[in-house]
Amino acid sequence: MSTEYENGIGGTVNMAMFGLGRIGKVHLQNLLDQEDVCIRYLVDVTAVQGDLHHLVRKYRLAETTMVLSTEEADVVFKDPCIDAVLICTPSTFHEETTKKALQAGKHVFCEKPLALTQQGVRSCYDAARKSGKNLLCAFNRRFDPDLTRIHKMKEDGELGRLRSVTVLSLDKHVPISYIKTSGGIYVDSCVHMLDYVCWFIGERPLSVYVCGSNTSAYADDYEASDDHDITNIVLTFPSGVLANIMAGREVTYGYDQHFQVLGSKKMAISKTYRKSEVETWDANGCVDDNLVESFIERWSSSYARIVRHFIDVVHGREDCMVSAEECIQSLELAKLCEDSVRTGKVVSVATRAQT
Amino acid sequence: MSTEYENGIGGTVNMAMFGLGRIGKVHLQNLLDQEDVCIRYLVDVTAVQGDLHHLVRKYRLAETTMVLSTEEADVVFKDPCIDAVLICTPSTFHEETTKKALQAGKHVFCEKPLALTQQGVRSCYDAARKSGKNLLCAFNRRFDPDLTRIHKMKEDGELGRLRSVTVLSLDKHVPISYIKTSGGIYVDSCVHMLDYVCWFIGERPLSVYVCGSNTSAYADDYEASDDHDITNIVLTFPSGVLANIMAGREVTYGYDQHFQVLGSKKMAISKTYRKSEVETWDANGCVDDNLVESFIERWSSSYARIVRHFIDVVHGREDCMVSAEECIQSLELAKLCEDSVRTGKVVSVATRAQT
Amino acid sequence: MSTEYENGIGGTVNMAMFGLGRIGKVHLQNLLDQEDVCIRYLVDVTAVQGDLHHLVRKYRLAETTMVLSTEEADVVFKDPCIDAVLICTPSTFHEETTKKALQAGKHVFCEKPLALTQQGVRSCYDAARKSGKNLLCAFNRRFDPDLTRIHKMKEDGELGRLRSVTVLSLDKHVPISYIKTSGGIYVDSCVHMLDYVCWFIGERPLSVYVCGSNTSAYADDYEASDDHDITNIVLTFPSGVLANIMAGREVTYGYDQHFQVLGSKKMAISKTYRKSEVETWDANGCVDDNLVESFIERWSSSYARIVRHFIDVVHGREDCMVSAEECIQSLELAKLCEDSVRTGKVVSVATRAQT
Amino acid sequence: MSTEYENGIGGTVNMAMFGLGRIGKVHLQNLLDQEDVCIRYLVDVTAVQGDLHHLVRKYRLAETTMVLSTEEADVVFKDPCIDAVLICTPSTFHEETTKKALQAGKHVFCEKPLALTQQGVRSCYDAARKSGKNLLCAFNRRFDPDLTRIHKMKEDGELGRLRSVTVLSLDKHVPISYIKTSGGIYVDSCVHMLDYVCWFIGERPLSVYVCGSNTSAYADDYEASDDHDITNIVLTFPSGVLANIMAGREVTYGYDQHFQVLGSKKMAISKTYRKSEVETWDANGCVDDNLVESFIERWSSSYARIVRHFIDVVHGREDCMVSAEECIQSLELAKLCEDSVRTGKVVSVATRAQT
Repeated sequence: MSTEYENGIGGTVNMAMFGLGRIGKVHLQNLLDQEDVCIRYLVDVTAVQGDLHHLVRKYRLAETTMVLSTEEADVVFKDPCIDAVLICTPSTFHEETTKKALQAGKHVFCEKPLALTQQGVRSCYDAARKSGKNLLCAFNRRFDPDLTRIHKMKEDGELGRLRSVTVLSLDKHVPISYIKTSGGIYVDSCVHMLDYVCWFIGERPLSVYVCGSNTSAYADDYEASDDHDITNIVLTFPSGVLANIMAGREVTYGYDQHFQVLGSKKMAISKTYRKSEVETWDANGCVDDNLVESFIERWSSSYARIVRHFIDVVHGREDCMVSAEECIQSLELAKLCEDSVRTGKVVSVATRAQT
Repeated sequence: MSTEYENGIGGTVNMAMFGLGRIGKVHLQNLLDQEDVCIRYLVDVTAVQGDLHHLVRKYRLAETTMVLSTEEADVVFKDPCIDAVLICTPSTFHEETTKKALQAGKHVFCEKPLALTQQGVRSCYDAARKSGKNLLCAFNRRFDPDLTRIHKMKEDGELGRLRSVTVLSLDKHVPISYIKTSGGIYVDSCVHMLDYVCWFIGERPLSVYVCGSNTSAYADDYEASDDHDITNIVLTFPSGVLANIMAGREVTYGYDQHFQVLGSKKMAISKTYRKSEVETWDANGCVDDNLVESFIERWSSSYARIVRHFIDVVHGREDCMVSAEECIQSLELAKLCEDSVRTGKVVSVATRAQT
Repeated sequence: MSTEYENGIGGTVNMAMFGLGRIGKVHLQNLLDQEDVCIRYLVDVTAVQGDLHHLVRKYRLAETTMVLSTEEADVVFKDPCIDAVLICTPSTFHEETTKKALQAGKHVFCEKPLALTQQGVRSCYDAARKSGKNLLCAFNRRFDPDLTRIHKMKEDGELGRLRSVTVLSLDKHVPISYIKTSGGIYVDSCVHMLDYVCWFIGERPLSVYVCGSNTSAYADDYEASDDHDITNIVLTFPSGVLANIMAGREVTYGYDQHFQVLGSKKMAISKTYRKSEVETWDANGCVDDNLVESFIERWSSSYARIVRHFIDVVHGREDCMVSAEECIQSLELAKLCEDSVRTGKVVSVATRAQT
Repeated sequence: MSTEYENGIGGTVNMAMFGLGRIGKVHLQNLLDQEDVCIRYLVDVTAVQGDLHHLVRKYRLAETTMVLSTEEADVVFKDPCIDAVLICTPSTFHEETTKKALQAGKHVFCEKPLALTQQGVRSCYDAARKSGKNLLCAFNRRFDPDLTRIHKMKEDGELGRLRSVTVLSLDKHVPISYIKTSGGIYVDSCVHMLDYVCWFIGERPLSVYVCGSNTSAYADDYEASDDHDITNIVLTFPSGVLANIMAGREVTYGYDQHFQVLGSKKMAISKTYRKSEVETWDANGCVDDNLVESFIERWSSSYARIVRHFIDVVHGREDCMVSAEECIQSLELAKLCEDSVRTGKVVSVATRAQT
């Protein structure tokens, strides 16, 4: 039976999923929309086995899918039918699960961060290289249709020479419990923007300079967590394109994502998403509907597309769009942001990256 | 087994679907998202049995769902487990299938038109009354979140007294083959706007006046089909609210749906949907992305919501939002539009409706 | 001295202004911006002579301009240096002043209506024909840069064949004292839209159908004045283009003017003007600034342009863009609107117009 | 006669204007709209005396206004009736003219820069202090109605605590001849944004970091002029608000000015101005009209308001809104930008400013 599922053969990709929380459920739904995918295992902690069984019923998976606790995870790794594993566990388990899966000869799709340390990330990619399997770190925003479309304009020369890339990325309220364990805004959130800005520009930055601050209604909580609720990141690149990321949390009005690219020929913008196209006008002004609430709504198409990309990578039809180098670089950049904000100085990327 | 599926018991609603074309597939997907629904039969003509089997595989329905040809439809009607039937066949089969299902004691969700004649529509509702089952004619646009939200503003008194309702509804190119058999723009397309405008206002119109014309690039085709490619419909209502529907086909730039309500306190607008939030600026101006392509994209949320409403009606939790009277009236209004455009005169609704 | 001011010589146009109220002041300011115009007289009733002297000081006109009371108006008509007269008095004086000026050999720019009766309008144009001088009735909206630009697109074939023209025209609160003497919404306000829609389309309409209503917060006042606070006007044209004008008063949110043209190739829209480009976003939504307050702000460019056009007509460099026929037709159409709304029937334009 | 024109008496302010180029003409027109201003002298180089005489005729100033060549400028300084002087000469003459006017006891409105050196600017303010007269450096953008309105929101606490201020400021093509003598983008253009950002925030920045680049179609010209065609300026402030200015030239699509403020309660935006409210839709998308062409159109209201402010300052009714300290600081900041971009380092403002 396993032979028909070999990578690249073009048959069904048999998969196991680790972690079925909020984003895990999004990925599950997207995977079930793929006709060449079969979800064989849902794995999560004992406490949520009931939820997993509910998912099995909801999606009519009883015939195909087994529910496992994390203690039983070895069943997955030992199952030769499994081609690929998708990992959405808490971050602390990413590295270990990724490595085990790779060592067992499975392709891996893992939420970022791959590991809690740069060394850990590198070792994951080492494991991938050794196993000859693909490891896709889920920098999903690159796969957003709007960003992709503007990227294609750039690639096609429609924008002319790149002059500036400006990102505004603002989240709504985040629970303090999350903040305390998130690893900080740079590693937890900005790493996304750092990744897609570098991908968009197609270059490795020369330097990074960051100013962070705490000015929201929850400023004290962030201060106490040694984190920032808003930050301004400036990157320089060899080609001269200027990049700027203003990222923050605790915005009152919605999930605000604005991406703007100035080229020598054209400006292109991906505007913030709103909940609807309803407007009301009265003496107080013309009110458009609110912004969408969260990243899940804003980036929903990108989740569908990155999952599809992963399946095509497993089939051998596409090269993995997020390389080891890029993934390592994005995490390094997040760390350099922390260095810059701590020292108040411009940090050279090249020097640090070679270390 | 059948007892646990009784209407209103709160268990799973067991359903059969007739017709799995473009809109049928949309309904299928939405139904599969309902955890209290089980699709027991997919029924369509012999030629597409392969497609039905493909749907069964794609959605993992092998355990629950049987594929039937239309010749075998009686299996459905005779199955006591089946609570409800959803009908998306070609219009010519609506009336017969609806009546058979009702007579077999099934609730029915049927695409509009319920029948090709007003008499047929009435007899469908007679059948529903006799069977004591619900018959929901799929005037989906009432269920659109944007229209619903503005309707709620009106109901809550937020808009003040209604003054005017203005609809712009323009479709892209429609194949001439479709036009020839569509029944004409009034019965095929305007009936939707007539339905939701009357629902929105909550009144029966007093009069209707219509000017139609053929002015698109395909004007000759429409002329030859004794149809109109654009039409302007004016309705008056007892409360004095003025309603206007400008409806057309063969628009070059996308699927354009604009709904605007003036109240004595506020104006509310549901704007046309665009494909994305991408803008590009150059010397030629500021270009927003195109409009969505078709009704499937514009009204996708309404399809999900009307299906959910139907399930709740079957459960007995909600009253059917599209009454027999409303459905008959909307079709009558479409016919009065044809009268007005043919005679060039204002047509009184009350007189005709009493006939 | 007079010889150098002859029409068409290319020198300075010497003018007198009758009526320096709100719109008169707008015209004065625009005329003073023309380097080939000299305002020789400001004429208004005795009560406002102080205001006129203030205008003379404000605009440094002491050397060139004489202030007259309406009793002294003959000074203007007898002054051979005066080439042209601009009339912004109350409507009751339009006809008499226009005729006297024409008979005295002056070109005339007069606010609409030229006269209170159709017969009066015709006799004004008779006077113009006899005198060989130009009479420009101030249908300023045709001169609006946005409408002009869309008109040019149409003339250049950029829009393709005209399919529909849709106007939304809504005013803020109008004092009841004004309503009582305005002549009604059709003659006072809709005549503007009737004029520019016919000009835009370039045809004489075939029929008109109108539904009026009173539904604003001031509905009773309008009802008592036998007027409408909102009305929906439908026009048909020989070429098949459909036209619709939704016009009203007593809107809470600003001065709302939306003009939309569907062509077989393109849609073009002239959107409502806002006070500023300020937006604010909070949990209640995204608030754009209010609409402009009044016609003075919305149509300010058109006032400057129609005045410039008049001067060029006086110079003989341009033909008068508002012909006698058009002016008479627009007033007739306004009257036909009243007929239609009174009878509830479609009114043929051709039949009536020939009467 | 002179006594009635004393500063603060409330009579007419008698003024002389030096330099009647593009911006000088804008100021002239705005001054002529002020009823309490009399322009007594227009002064410019011999070559444009004809233009000055033309302005006198155009604005009916023959009775009040004398035309002088720059050689005759002393007539102005010696005329005791003259209360105030407005200086729009080429920058090289600002310092000398300003000082002479102040020494002659005139209030001075001068275009920026007051002088070509920081020492020069300081000496101008020294002269103002000695003379007891006001010196207003024309940082007009602070007076823009949109920025003013958002500033008032901030002052009223409507925005909550300031979190970030983001400016996008992009000009169209600038002739190379201008670039060569402009003093560079920081002193010539960014000084405006530095000024109004600091004014808006109401604080002195702590540090500045700047990345500049040359990436436009005219990059080589800028490179040759040792200038930048785009630059990204980051400022930090004591209160923690983050400020970012992305400023550039050689944009293809219009004059783009976007100002965005995030507060802990609200976001406020002043959007880029467009030429009109015309939209066209076709298969290529929804095209809004172009942006305005230049700063003259974008900031026109601010020019009217700063001139009015100056008159009120001369009358003693308002305190000068641009203080010596602010003007000196803005120029210093522009110079610090140059330091930062040259060294590639973050520059502390406090240290330098005390020098």
